[in-house]
Amino acid sequence: MRIYKMETLKIIKIGGNIIDNEQVLDDFLKQFSLIKGLKILVHGGGKLATQLAEKTGVRVNMVDGRRITNLETLDIITMVYAGKINKNIVAKLQAFHCNAIGFTGADGNSIISTKRPVKEIDFGFVGDVEKVNTKTLQILLEHKVTPVFCAITHDNNGQLLNTNADTIASELAIGFAKDFKTELYYCFEKNGVLKDINDDFSVIENINLENYQKLIDTKVISDGMLPKLNNCFHAIKNNVEKICIGKPEMLFKQKIKCTTIKQ
Amino acid sequence: MRIYKMETLKIIKIGGNIIDNEQVLDDFLKQFSLIKGLKILVHGGGKLATQLAEKTGVRVNMVDGRRITNLETLDIITMVYAGKINKNIVAKLQAFHCNAIGFTGADGNSIISTKRPVKEIDFGFVGDVEKVNTKTLQILLEHKVTPVFCAITHDNNGQLLNTNADTIASELAIGFAKDFKTELYYCFEKNGVLKDINDDFSVIENINLENYQKLIDTKVISDGMLPKLNNCFHAIKNNVEKICIGKPEMLFKQKIKCTTIKQ
Repeated sequence: MRIYKMETLKIIKIGGNIIDNEQVLDDFLKQFSLIKGLKILVHGGGKLATQLAEKTGVRVNMVDGRRITNLETLDIITMVYAGKINKNIVAKLQAFHCNAIGFTGADGNSIISTKRPVKEIDFGFVGDVEKVNTKTLQILLEHKVTPVFCAITHDNNGQLLNTNADTIASELAIGFAKDFKTELYYCFEKNGVLKDINDDFSVIENINLENYQKLIDTKVISDGMLPKLNNCFHAIKNNVEKICIGKPEMLFKQKIKCTTIKQ
Repeated sequence: MRIYKMETLKIIKIGGNIIDNEQVLDDFLKQFSLIKGLKILVHGGGKLATQLAEKTGVRVNMVDGRRITNLETLDIITMVYAGKINKNIVAKLQAFHCNAIGFTGADGNSIISTKRPVKEIDFGFVGDVEKVNTKTLQILLEHKVTPVFCAITHDNNGQLLNTNADTIASELAIGFAKDFKTELYYCFEKNGVLKDINDDFSVIENINLENYQKLIDTKVISDGMLPKLNNCFHAIKNNVEKICIGKPEMLFKQKIKCTTIKQ
């Protein structure tokens, strides 16, 4: 077996703002395909799943602002994420000479999760990641194949499960940290974590465990950014070398500001 | 590079009659996972795509009994075939300890096709297979991974294309014939090619080029069976070692009658 540790693996997560706009997605994928070295793409879902649910009369069930994944919703997510979005991304990457293969966690048994236990809320078919199997993925990476993950895992007992795409990205980065120098990039519509949410130039360029607590205490970081950053620190504590949050340009251009998370 | 020629690769195609019934599919996949040696599964679509088209108000456009694949229909096929059906099959195979990965022709750039030229009929986004790239698949097979193909290919220019599942199976068998002893199994609801379509015991056990023409001339073989058998003879002429048509049981049990195609 080769020793990889000095080789870098970039794990790049893109969200709905890139997926929902065909031109933006095309431009991103063109740039992504030019990134040298080992890479994995993880994509979220965007608005398409909600649109298909509306068209087919599947009721979107929300509790405390969080989506409940019943069997019908799981079917829609599987069709949209693993079918339409994932396969169109793979086809486009091939056109840009990036040899991609689409993955859920079931493919290659790569991400096993547990159906979230029912406490106050029954989230339905939602999976919390239990284990990342890097073996099959590593063989593909070694042969210059780029895995493209959608936000679906499985319980290794035949059941697909809806899983947060940010978490899939960080768990992959952690899972590969024993083999590679892993870097995690969260691409979204802002320049990074902002001091003032209305000012895209107020990027906090470095966050570490020390100033993180202060940022929480002073309520600079709150709401949606909290779980994302908790994901990041979980990854940093588990040997992920570098994490960046910002616009996709941070990947392709020098001197673009973004937020870097360090221990 | 290893010399494979003496190793056997089984390519097994299942159709709608297996996919549409969850219990039948489960039983099949359980048996399939027990098949020793190298194998690839190819699945058709079943009734689910038509059901989703109806639910979402996409009109199924037929010309001369053949489905026209416009962009909306292609989306539905991609969602149902590559999403729901393919990923559920992969998850179930993993539960049966068969390490599967779902494929369209875009994944691993494995099957490149050309959009069918418009003559009398514009079939829309339908692809005729041009080339099978065995490279990435072969690496996976070598590591005991089982590829599971749905009936979608791509043009290597970013466009997914709807492609006949029987053809995908035969083209894969032909593509791999240089590396393996390839065997092709078409599973459907009958015991094989029948002398009398209403008598499931009237199986024609052997068809070769010689009696094939006679069977066509005497109209024993006609309609839907003709393109299937043309596919078979195309494969036999291109070094596929063995082709069987019949019920899935032909794979798992001795002494089950089926039709075998030989040169």
